[in-house]
Amino acid sequence: MMLVEGEPGDGDTATSGPPAPVKASEEEAAERIRSSVRCSGLCTMSSAHSAHLGRVLCIITGASRGFGRTVAREVSGLVKPGSVLVLAARSGDDLRSLQAELTESEAGRAGLRVESVVADMAQMEGIEKVVRSSEEAFSEHIDHLILVNNAASLGDVSRSVKTFTDMAEVDSYLSLNVSSSMCLTARVLQSFPQRPGLRRTIVNVTSLCALQPFRSWVLYCTGKAAREMMFRVLAEEEPDLRVLNYSPGPLDTAMQVEARTRTADDTIRKSFVDMFDQGQLLTCEASCAKLMKLLLEDNYTSGAHIDVYDV
Amino acid sequence: MMLVEGEPGDGDTATSGPPAPVKASEEEAAERIRSSVRCSGLCTMSSAHSAHLGRVLCIITGASRGFGRTVAREVSGLVKPGSVLVLAARSGDDLRSLQAELTESEAGRAGLRVESVVADMAQMEGIEKVVRSSEEAFSEHIDHLILVNNAASLGDVSRSVKTFTDMAEVDSYLSLNVSSSMCLTARVLQSFPQRPGLRRTIVNVTSLCALQPFRSWVLYCTGKAAREMMFRVLAEEEPDLRVLNYSPGPLDTAMQVEARTRTADDTIRKSFVDMFDQGQLLTCEASCAKLMKLLLEDNYTSGAHIDVYDV
Repeated sequence: MMLVEGEPGDGDTATSGPPAPVKASEEEAAERIRSSVRCSGLCTMSSAHSAHLGRVLCIITGASRGFGRTVAREVSGLVKPGSVLVLAARSGDDLRSLQAELTESEAGRAGLRVESVVADMAQMEGIEKVVRSSEEAFSEHIDHLILVNNAASLGDVSRSVKTFTDMAEVDSYLSLNVSSSMCLTARVLQSFPQRPGLRRTIVNVTSLCALQPFRSWVLYCTGKAAREMMFRVLAEEEPDLRVLNYSPGPLDTAMQVEARTRTADDTIRKSFVDMFDQGQLLTCEASCAKLMKLLLEDNYTSGAHIDVYDV
Repeated sequence: MMLVEGEPGDGDTATSGPPAPVKASEEEAAERIRSSVRCSGLCTMSSAHSAHLGRVLCIITGASRGFGRTVAREVSGLVKPGSVLVLAARSGDDLRSLQAELTESEAGRAGLRVESVVADMAQMEGIEKVVRSSEEAFSEHIDHLILVNNAASLGDVSRSVKTFTDMAEVDSYLSLNVSSSMCLTARVLQSFPQRPGLRRTIVNVTSLCALQPFRSWVLYCTGKAAREMMFRVLAEEEPDLRVLNYSPGPLDTAMQVEARTRTADDTIRKSFVDMFDQGQLLTCEASCAKLMKLLLEDNYTSGAHIDVYDV
């Protein structure tokens, strides 16, 4: 099973083909945003919107690769000293190299603590391990809890709905992609209940697939639709929380390689190839910069689906 | 676990309170539609839109009670002799009494065959049992395959998202409500592939909860959103199929008793009580008449979400 993130495309490629030529200055704009908000973990100044995320405890799942890894890096540059990152993934090597990188970075030298938790989020034990590490790392000085539900898998895109006759396969997909993020979120909220002085932000890495059906992508679409609805219910139930369903756009990651090479439906697959050929994929950094902008400005509607192209 | 159907309310009760006073003539109108289309299984005349569903093989899950039971009755009155109903549910007694009722009805006496399959749709064996019975009942004379994915459970509505820390509980809910209908549909499509002269219609009993979040209803909302997306992908993939996501409205069934008495959120619970007190719940018969109208007219967009109040 591959850990992925993001979404297949910008716009309904299933019905309208590949997206319109994108924003040549996308990366450029993202870089501007990044440099305007990044402050090396040492920043204490404030501006119209906050220049930092506070003294955070930030839990990121699927942190070893792709978008999750980028989120870890970007967050580390936007937090006050005394913050903690809890990075979870199944791949220990990739996770430890990230931990070393961040510990040795300017933020790390300034007092950012980085915990890596090798854990399978498809298992209760994995969830408990992440929660235990987070509890141990928490201190009274933390003023912002951030949970980034990023871990997800693509599912088999080489087949159509009518081939999914094995309940165990579908069950397993939904367990990792839906149940796991619900239970992790619930456990984290129980461990870190509402209290004065503690902001709590829950990010769900969602996708256009949560809103629109794509041929050959039934598991991914179904899982993303389920997961986004779950976080919308959470936003309704807990008005003190900030809940963000962030759709990072078509990212230049391993997922897009899968999309380009393995998608069964010819039209959909070709739209991925075209996006790649025409340089329309976003870097994780460009998309993550938009996510950071949303978190810093903090004026999105809780529970809303926000697409990278709308930021 | 309770087998239920339908949806909590008309309109976003979570944000706008109980729905506007409904359509006093709802039942009346439904009765008119029913009597205009019903033809006792013997009808062969045709009109502007078809007066019957054809010589059908119709598989209905969750057929023993509530909406599923009503669908079985209504379909039996709209099919040509030589049709077969395959009724699946876990409750053998309720199922057999329905089988007896339909076999003794005018349609039954005219040659409608009714098979009851006692099966747990949460298990692969249950799905296989239904498929086997359907294959055995099929004949070359059948010109319309109809699968009604109706079986569903409400989930525990007495709790909020932050209490769902047990993955096994969430997994089990998603298995029954999402994986099961995906795998049954896939198996049925494999057993009855596209061929000239055979129409194939797949109905998913969906809900307003597939589109809107309701406090305390996280499992139901998540499951319905997932399931509806799955059938939207199916509709994209198989243009020869007719796929209908039908939202039957707030039905006067056991589910509404649960909704009124067990929903944790006070505002949501009160909106259910108000709907009941003000006579705004629909009978299964009134809602099912709208479903039959849709199936007979057969001009909905495949994959679309269609609400009872929009018919």
